[in-house]
Amino acid sequence: MCYSMNSQQPLGGGIVAYADSARAEEAPEPPPRKKKVVVLGTGWAGTSFLKNLDSSRYEVKVISPRNYFAFTPLLPSVTCGTVEARSVVEPIRRMFEKKGKDVAYYEAECFKIDPTKKAVHCRSAVGTNLDGNGDFMLDYDYLVVALGATVNTFNTPGVMEHCHFLKEVEDAQKIRKSVIDCFERASIPNISEEEKRKILHFVIIGGGPTGVEFAAELHDFLVEDLVKLYPAIAQFVKITIIQSGEHILNTFDQRIAVFAESKFQRDGIELSTGFRVIKVSDDSITVKCKSSGVETLVPYGMAIWSAGIGTRPVITDFMNQVGQGKRRALATNEWLRVPECDSVYAIGDCSSISQRKIMEDISTIFKVADKDNSGTLTLKEINDVLEDICIRYPQVELYMKSMHMVDIADLIKGGVGDSNKESMVVNIEEFKKALCHVDSQVKTVPATAQVVSISIEYIG
Amino acid sequence: MCYSMNSQQPLGGGIVAYADSARAEEAPEPPPRKKKVVVLGTGWAGTSFLKNLDSSRYEVKVISPRNYFAFTPLLPSVTCGTVEARSVVEPIRRMFEKKGKDVAYYEAECFKIDPTKKAVHCRSAVGTNLDGNGDFMLDYDYLVVALGATVNTFNTPGVMEHCHFLKEVEDAQKIRKSVIDCFERASIPNISEEEKRKILHFVIIGGGPTGVEFAAELHDFLVEDLVKLYPAIAQFVKITIIQSGEHILNTFDQRIAVFAESKFQRDGIELSTGFRVIKVSDDSITVKCKSSGVETLVPYGMAIWSAGIGTRPVITDFMNQVGQGKRRALATNEWLRVPECDSVYAIGDCSSISQRKIMEDISTIFKVADKDNSGTLTLKEINDVLEDICIRYPQVELYMKSMHMVDIADLIKGGVGDSNKESMVVNIEEFKKALCHVDSQVKTVPATAQVVSISIEYIG
Repeated sequence: MCYSMNSQQPLGGGIVAYADSARAEEAPEPPPRKKKVVVLGTGWAGTSFLKNLDSSRYEVKVISPRNYFAFTPLLPSVTCGTVEARSVVEPIRRMFEKKGKDVAYYEAECFKIDPTKKAVHCRSAVGTNLDGNGDFMLDYDYLVVALGATVNTFNTPGVMEHCHFLKEVEDAQKIRKSVIDCFERASIPNISEEEKRKILHFVIIGGGPTGVEFAAELHDFLVEDLVKLYPAIAQFVKITIIQSGEHILNTFDQRIAVFAESKFQRDGIELSTGFRVIKVSDDSITVKCKSSGVETLVPYGMAIWSAGIGTRPVITDFMNQVGQGKRRALATNEWLRVPECDSVYAIGDCSSISQRKIMEDISTIFKVADKDNSGTLTLKEINDVLEDICIRYPQVELYMKSMHMVDIADLIKGGVGDSNKESMVVNIEEFKKALCHVDSQVKTVPATAQVVSISIEYIG
Repeated sequence: MCYSMNSQQPLGGGIVAYADSARAEEAPEPPPRKKKVVVLGTGWAGTSFLKNLDSSRYEVKVISPRNYFAFTPLLPSVTCGTVEARSVVEPIRRMFEKKGKDVAYYEAECFKIDPTKKAVHCRSAVGTNLDGNGDFMLDYDYLVVALGATVNTFNTPGVMEHCHFLKEVEDAQKIRKSVIDCFERASIPNISEEEKRKILHFVIIGGGPTGVEFAAELHDFLVEDLVKLYPAIAQFVKITIIQSGEHILNTFDQRIAVFAESKFQRDGIELSTGFRVIKVSDDSITVKCKSSGVETLVPYGMAIWSAGIGTRPVITDFMNQVGQGKRRALATNEWLRVPECDSVYAIGDCSSISQRKIMEDISTIFKVADKDNSGTLTLKEINDVLEDICIRYPQVELYMKSMHMVDIADLIKGGVGDSNKESMVVNIEEFKKALCHVDSQVKTVPATAQVVSISIEYIG
């Protein structure tokens, strides 16, 4: 890791133990005080980090209002009863107990991070009946911020009041109850056909993976189960996906999107692409056609909002404190550390990694690689440092792959012309020219559970 | 059934089909209109009745705010996660579908019974988002009232606001969440030992079967599961049962009560018998010692109220209409019919059967049994009508059993002295004297699911 400009030992590597200097002379030497690690959050990021942490070496405290880990990819199945809520959660205390981890857990919400005092301010999540408000403060030596993201309504009026979301287990349970409620409402006497169609119109706003998975589960639930139990009103059921883009699943390969769209068409799920939701009332959704600008009222019985994720207030506040005020997620360096403050790491949906550009360090890299100080690099000299380069700048491998290059020589050759691989020699200018397009492969990593899990293994 | 004074055909027997007299001459004869049966309630009483009803012979409509049947004896197990909520419920529509019943179900609450117009007024139980309030009216030819009972707080201040109940599946789920919440609350930092003891004090008010079963489940849950997950606070946990009587389970055989009490003592569950709860605040219960009159404050973390059942408002209103205003449950005759109005039956916890006394009918019974009009009954004459007597007046068998009598001759002998069984002959006065104590065995049948189920088989 010789190229790191502001290198910082990742958490868990080579921490010097701290010993109380004021201890009494005659007492037996007390064990060195363990460093305090505070983890905020028990989602994918927090639990993945904890799994790999050697809890015997630190005093670990975990804060979250949710005392369980939820396997979120199965939430759409919980909405329809395919999977029971109990099956997709694991109590956090049981996880610790099973793995023999010595970890303290507090069911509380962190409402302020104070990086100056190295402390977090928390509030008990179960305040009912409790004297006082249950506020407390914890100080840390290392803080791991894994608070996730929140629902983003883009301030669309009525969404908070009238739409369901699909972020938590409780959301999924509410949706399930609400679907059945719609069928029961449409079954009572004296309901007009128009009213029945309205009540049984299920609208999904946002055609990303969450919305699409939910639409598919809902369709199966309706067709396989509910139609049998409510035969008299089955004909009035309709599912619609409203998507502002031209295609659903637009962050995926287009073949996946096309497949999903044609499957939904066969299933009778309506796709309203190119429409933006501008208002939601208790029984209708106002949509605006993006091309024509025409507004339409869509009557509905139940609506799910799955149009994106936003920043939690505590993260916004923290970003303001450290001078990241204009961002949507906490920026970390490639060691997942928040560079503006001491010993604070951020992982998962609440953060994004700012990958260091190779061109910023190109002179240093050249100098280190040029062991014989010849002013030029041979292929061997480059190969000797290649592994370090690829770890530090993952964009190098991504770029080579995207250009169908077999090895580093192919990349360098682009800079020095069609020379023989083995005898190739490059000076600093040629080296720069060869690598100048590599940084185009620096991408924001998508906020998905898998990515979190992989990045976490590294910190642990 | 020759002894019945105001005999009434039970529902389902010999109903004359009604045909529309105004039909056009040339049209093919339409099928006779089916009689309308409206059932209020989907608990033990309502579903047991529906199971045995031939739905092809009637137009059946079921009204209940609960679209499932709940197996209530397992609710205490749901509070602790031993049994999952899903496992103790059966959707009412699925029950009908499985049994091939042609029954309409409306998820609504009946808020008024109008016996004059033979109609019930209902309100949709899922009114959200619905235009109008979802009220509707259904008329009936036969009404089966199976609305159950409600929680009875005896107007004790604070009970509704601060106590949990255990009547519905939702109650059990809330209790489960609340137990865990108490443990989480007691785990957050800066909580004094006194506060921890308070938060982890689980109080059960009412030592009947519900309270006792819940106490036992809670104890097992704490000892087998929670103590492992919250080892730091396990020592502060306490369970108390507050019972106004001198013993818990006082409607059961005393040996059962004694066994339960000594088991609870061994388990460390505290029994506060002879105390009446007079007030509940958000963190303490005021109890009054019934013997000394002294009031004490009991700090608590969670309280369950299981001290009895009361009358639903719609039943109170109906009783006022039919002149049963001062009762706690709807009185029916032994055919489960509400005698004051036409074609209304009541079953389950909302009703109680007024058993006809045998002494009121004793002359008629004697006359019918005396086939040869001799003015006396032989043993054979009595035996010929004995089965009918025992069906109509169950107290006869109960009385004989309680007096350890082997047959009817033993009962009659008590009236006529120590005569020979076979040659025994009784006149009307001796017959009256022999049976005069039988009516002491007329008891109010306890409100339990088993009793309901048995009485229902008869109506169906």
